[in-house]
Amino acid sequence: MKKLSVIKVGGAILENAEKFGDFLDGFAAIEGSKILVHGGGRDATRIATKLGVETRMVDGRRLTDAPMLEIVVMTYGGLLNKSIVARLQSKGVNAIGVTGADLNLVTASKRPIKNGIDYGFVGDVETVNTEMFIQLLEIPCTPILAPLSYSISGTLLNTNADTMASAIAVALSVNYDVDLIYCFEKEGVLKDPENESSIIPEITTQSFDVLKSEGIVTSGMLPKIENALTAVGHGVKRVIIQKYDKIGCMDCGTIIKLN
Amino acid sequence: MKKLSVIKVGGAILENAEKFGDFLDGFAAIEGSKILVHGGGRDATRIATKLGVETRMVDGRRLTDAPMLEIVVMTYGGLLNKSIVARLQSKGVNAIGVTGADLNLVTASKRPIKNGIDYGFVGDVETVNTEMFIQLLEIPCTPILAPLSYSISGTLLNTNADTMASAIAVALSVNYDVDLIYCFEKEGVLKDPENESSIIPEITTQSFDVLKSEGIVTSGMLPKIENALTAVGHGVKRVIIQKYDKIGCMDCGTIIKLN
Repeated sequence: MKKLSVIKVGGAILENAEKFGDFLDGFAAIEGSKILVHGGGRDATRIATKLGVETRMVDGRRLTDAPMLEIVVMTYGGLLNKSIVARLQSKGVNAIGVTGADLNLVTASKRPIKNGIDYGFVGDVETVNTEMFIQLLEIPCTPILAPLSYSISGTLLNTNADTMASAIAVALSVNYDVDLIYCFEKEGVLKDPENESSIIPEITTQSFDVLKSEGIVTSGMLPKIENALTAVGHGVKRVIIQKYDKIGCMDCGTIIKLN
Repeated sequence: MKKLSVIKVGGAILENAEKFGDFLDGFAAIEGSKILVHGGGRDATRIATKLGVETRMVDGRRLTDAPMLEIVVMTYGGLLNKSIVARLQSKGVNAIGVTGADLNLVTASKRPIKNGIDYGFVGDVETVNTEMFIQLLEIPCTPILAPLSYSISGTLLNTNADTMASAIAVALSVNYDVDLIYCFEKEGVLKDPENESSIIPEITTQSFDVLKSEGIVTSGMLPKIENALTAVGHGVKRVIIQKYDKIGCMDCGTIIKLN
């Protein structure tokens, strides 16, 4: 099967001009078919503040009422997405910026109110349109996804970028050998969060249990690794968690494998 | 040759929920290959006002400094474009929302300072990537273009939607029988602007000269018709100027032909 890299990059990197540039250079240099899923929470907060719309978070997730949906569509789907596309084109990458609504690529259902929490216009991914992704990849071009899905009734929905990247990677693993790469600001999963050289080079289902029970991997990193293990359990060849400026390096960061 | 409809709709229609819905229903019903180019000036003005960015116009064209560029990319490329896409998908149209940067579809040069007027990040169209448009149309899907082009150095540029539609229609007339349809709020080009039933059914190069000399067609309509005549002079089969809720009707509005 052909190789496909699905890369996720967070908003924290995109809002820093230097890191953004380094990341795009690395992304442009990756050979073969690739898809980028970007976050962008902080830009939405900045614009929301300017527009007088209050940002409210529950467990790190943004509550998305109608005015906030307008803001995330503008910032994720417009400002960030199209800036990435224009800059990648200037680097010779035939990028196309899309959301889940474009070509019906990623549908979702609006998250129901649970335990009294109404997340508003937030989508839980339902389907990934592998046929349309393949058609885009075979143009050939490089889809750049904003973290927005949509319900088939025609409403855009704010969607977690990690989850969206994972769902796309899993769906396309039927047709491609997929590497899923999560880029963030650390060198990888660290034994000691204060020591960037304490990278854990490989995590498997077995070693993850040990790391958890010994309290080495905690809090914010747990859902990321669980998400990664789910992906490799559903057909993704490997998941790599690595620093944004090491993208494309196959010996850098932490590799998550089944066993 | 296959038929292609290139439709342009202005921002005034998109900002009115009822007119927007009527237009999308009509657009969805058009058979065969189609491309939509939308405007959106008024939404940018609304968001700019909220963000405390001053809107300055010269001869009806927006001066686009860096803060205003950020706003038009958000509103045209994000809010408006992706809302149109999501709503068209819910009507069964396989829409994909793009700018000139996506797939390198429409490149432009930044307008030089002339007569002391610096329009800022405004683009004059240079190239239309017919190969990529054809690839999209053959997926098949329906490209929805925001009025944004880009310079190959990686900068997005604010671009007049009428001109963008015309440039795309002309470029694709090599491969398709192209109808270019300008949708607006009047029934067509009117003999008497106060009388919606005084539609001029057909304008040719010859009759345009007469209409001009008799002072029947004036001011705002002149550049639109000149633009239309240029398009038919460069390969577009016909240009129709019609009301937004008559789209798809071939006997409604004003048809602009060479002779």
